[in-house]
Amino acid sequence: MKLTLNKIAEIVDGDLEGDGSAIVHDVAEIQNAGKGEITFLGNPKYEHFVNDTEAEAIIVDQDYDGQYKNLIKVKNVNLAFSKMLDHFRPSPPKPEPKIEKSAFVSEKAILGVDIYIGHNVVVEDGAVIENGAVIKSNSYIGVDSRVGANALINPRVTIYHNCTIGEDVIIHSGTVIGSDGYGYTRTDGGIEKIPQKGGVVIEDNVEVGANCTIDRGTISDTRIGRGTKLDNLIQLGHNVKVGKYCFIVAQTGIAGSTTIEDGVTIAGQVGIAGHIRIGKGARIAAKSGITKDVPPDTTMFWYPAREQRQARKDIINIRRISKLKDRVKELEKIIETKKG
Amino acid sequence: MKLTLNKIAEIVDGDLEGDGSAIVHDVAEIQNAGKGEITFLGNPKYEHFVNDTEAEAIIVDQDYDGQYKNLIKVKNVNLAFSKMLDHFRPSPPKPEPKIEKSAFVSEKAILGVDIYIGHNVVVEDGAVIENGAVIKSNSYIGVDSRVGANALINPRVTIYHNCTIGEDVIIHSGTVIGSDGYGYTRTDGGIEKIPQKGGVVIEDNVEVGANCTIDRGTISDTRIGRGTKLDNLIQLGHNVKVGKYCFIVAQTGIAGSTTIEDGVTIAGQVGIAGHIRIGKGARIAAKSGITKDVPPDTTMFWYPAREQRQARKDIINIRRISKLKDRVKELEKIIETKKG
Amino acid sequence: MKLTLNKIAEIVDGDLEGDGSAIVHDVAEIQNAGKGEITFLGNPKYEHFVNDTEAEAIIVDQDYDGQYKNLIKVKNVNLAFSKMLDHFRPSPPKPEPKIEKSAFVSEKAILGVDIYIGHNVVVEDGAVIENGAVIKSNSYIGVDSRVGANALINPRVTIYHNCTIGEDVIIHSGTVIGSDGYGYTRTDGGIEKIPQKGGVVIEDNVEVGANCTIDRGTISDTRIGRGTKLDNLIQLGHNVKVGKYCFIVAQTGIAGSTTIEDGVTIAGQVGIAGHIRIGKGARIAAKSGITKDVPPDTTMFWYPAREQRQARKDIINIRRISKLKDRVKELEKIIETKKG
Repeated sequence: MKLTLNKIAEIVDGDLEGDGSAIVHDVAEIQNAGKGEITFLGNPKYEHFVNDTEAEAIIVDQDYDGQYKNLIKVKNVNLAFSKMLDHFRPSPPKPEPKIEKSAFVSEKAILGVDIYIGHNVVVEDGAVIENGAVIKSNSYIGVDSRVGANALINPRVTIYHNCTIGEDVIIHSGTVIGSDGYGYTRTDGGIEKIPQKGGVVIEDNVEVGANCTIDRGTISDTRIGRGTKLDNLIQLGHNVKVGKYCFIVAQTGIAGSTTIEDGVTIAGQVGIAGHIRIGKGARIAAKSGITKDVPPDTTMFWYPAREQRQARKDIINIRRISKLKDRVKELEKIIETKKG
Repeated sequence: MKLTLNKIAEIVDGDLEGDGSAIVHDVAEIQNAGKGEITFLGNPKYEHFVNDTEAEAIIVDQDYDGQYKNLIKVKNVNLAFSKMLDHFRPSPPKPEPKIEKSAFVSEKAILGVDIYIGHNVVVEDGAVIENGAVIKSNSYIGVDSRVGANALINPRVTIYHNCTIGEDVIIHSGTVIGSDGYGYTRTDGGIEKIPQKGGVVIEDNVEVGANCTIDRGTISDTRIGRGTKLDNLIQLGHNVKVGKYCFIVAQTGIAGSTTIEDGVTIAGQVGIAGHIRIGKGARIAAKSGITKDVPPDTTMFWYPAREQRQARKDIINIRRISKLKDRVKELEKIIETKKG
Repeated sequence: MKLTLNKIAEIVDGDLEGDGSAIVHDVAEIQNAGKGEITFLGNPKYEHFVNDTEAEAIIVDQDYDGQYKNLIKVKNVNLAFSKMLDHFRPSPPKPEPKIEKSAFVSEKAILGVDIYIGHNVVVEDGAVIENGAVIKSNSYIGVDSRVGANALINPRVTIYHNCTIGEDVIIHSGTVIGSDGYGYTRTDGGIEKIPQKGGVVIEDNVEVGANCTIDRGTISDTRIGRGTKLDNLIQLGHNVKVGKYCFIVAQTGIAGSTTIEDGVTIAGQVGIAGHIRIGKGARIAAKSGITKDVPPDTTMFWYPAREQRQARKDIINIRRISKLKDRVKELEKIIETKKG
């Protein structure tokens, strides 16, 4: 569905600088965009493409001061571009409400209205599937677990027993919610398993990526707060509490009983030790290892992690040790000469 | 089922200090425990909660010298607390022996007695399911593989062909046993795959967490020894041999043909190179990278890893380079002055 | 099927030094090989086993200058040994063409000839399964996705909608292709999801290990080039482009919009930042963290990564800081004495 730039400016609540009657029929990345395509400049690394692109128009930040034939200036470039994606590349429709024949739904499960349960899905005794939820094929919903209204469970997800998935939650394929926490105790005879009897609670509007593992609590629940977004292959240990509106990037692991407060950003491949607290609004740089509490609004880096400026200084210092050695050698020579 | 403290002390083989007639109806974490709940002090970080908790009683180590209205002193706090968890939070019962209608079980598979095979499970030709094994829904058991007596295969597990799972083994959801090892050779034409013809042997009493990947051997088997416990998202390469009673924490990867001897503890996000040997009882700290053999009973840390005390010294030294530079600068000034 | 050494030398195009009439009935690793077994020496670490092995013969590099009763010298040891594996340990046959009864195949899917679709597989509307493809049990093929000729999709794989899998591709169990990229933007109200509307293209002859996650692109496709081989538990973010004939080892993560050129080798547990470029033929050592573009044919190491020789020098320098401190202390003493 084609749009004029005037119409687009209206949709994204932006200021058009250029030809409002120009027509757009698709979105594209700035390095690939051609005639009739709208693109965006969301990352300064891509600014040099402005000179080369053949895009019909570019969505830019309201403070952008470069030149292009057609610019649409907005407050939030990503948000504006999202609207274009939604317009020009409509999502596949939500499946029609239905329970596929090959699904197994226990007679003791409780089902809302307008739900979709895919092929080979298993819904065990006491599970509750709330209104409008979609559970795609080959997923498993354990005993007494609850899937919230309008949640989207992608194909091949496992939710063990006694877990609660909030409203509008999205869980991607391969993710496992509620497997046993890693708890053992060495005994004379070998190793004894500590039973894991808590659950997992995932609050509303959370998204969990693919192939994550979120262990159930030992006594109380492992919990992910409202609006938090997890990427892929993330490990949350038992009893972890993640606050609201956090970002956790791929392959990060958080050990048992640690608390992540609200609004924390954790980059990829980070490791966080158990039984610690990451303060509100803290940021952890990629691949860092956190072994102690982190104060609120602090940025941490490296392993073992320090406040980011200190860590960077440490790294620069390492790279200058050779020079320092040279200076010491020089001093030694001078002293030696004087001695002689 | 309520218990008096006298009864609990008997069950956990502990010494009660306090009111033996007090009644407990549930377990709780020390920071949350209230009246009628029993808790435990398993980690000294939580000792300060003893002042605030409203728990009916606390299970503590026999050497604990703090005060509380009701203490039960035991040799192994975790073990005692496990018994309380088992008592107050009974596990869901093992499923009744049954083969669900939607399961596919080959006529050439061999089935023991008292087994449960869940919905949409596939059991291929020649597979052997021993007495009392439970295979939960949507799992796959490949050709000629064997699931040991009383093993528990959680939903959505894959066991490729020619793998052996021991007695009482627990495998969590999403784990893949027996995928091809990563073996290729560059040729003139590109890259050639080296066939992977060994299997995987998982000995009795092993537990494997969720979404792990354990590759089959090239010629002989990849092997995990009796009683070893793996956390989630762990990678074992082809031909790896893990000994008995090891702990391997989440997101650790062990490259091909490496041997881990008995009783080794490997923390989270560790990487271990291929074709090396980790000696009996060694300990590898979190996020370490091991590139060489590790002698028995050694603790290794950092990347590239060193014996832990040395690694810690290195890290402290890094943090003091700035001071060292200042000292060198000071010396340079003095020398310069003397020259002048 | 037994072979003489003469026959083996012929099959692997090698030069036999020894008894051509000796008979081999199986393959074995050099440390385990016994009478009648052929082994290989592919890694110099194992050379000392030549003295102990009881193998009937050893396949060695054409330049090997050690002694053994029967040696077969070849240009590519791994390739020669592969042929022996294929001979003595034949693979299970490809399943007979068939669509298992419990599979769900949409009427709007397009099916080639000689395909196998396993138990509980779901093939959605518009999906295309090309000639000779094998889709094993409990896998999911989304709307409008394509599985190329003779591709092998192992059990429990997810391919979301609009993804393309090339010819002869192998995908291992648990892998998820086409889950949403990790794209959000913070707004006044919280966090808004950026729709992910591109696909994934996996070119011919790629192999992807178990439990990997390969996200779909935001606008254009995430892409893996011809002949590239991925190990297990690997994360590729949205819009990543991987070139041809690359190796990527287990647990590596590549963040969004990064380009990996042809022939790159990335070892295990590496992290690569988003929006950067890794030049042709570059090599990244295990556990490294790459934050900037890497020039072609460069080897990078450590975190933050540097060119490998520099990184190694940095690490050696760290280990010598204590000595440097001692030298500074010594100088300070001398100066102090002179002052006194």
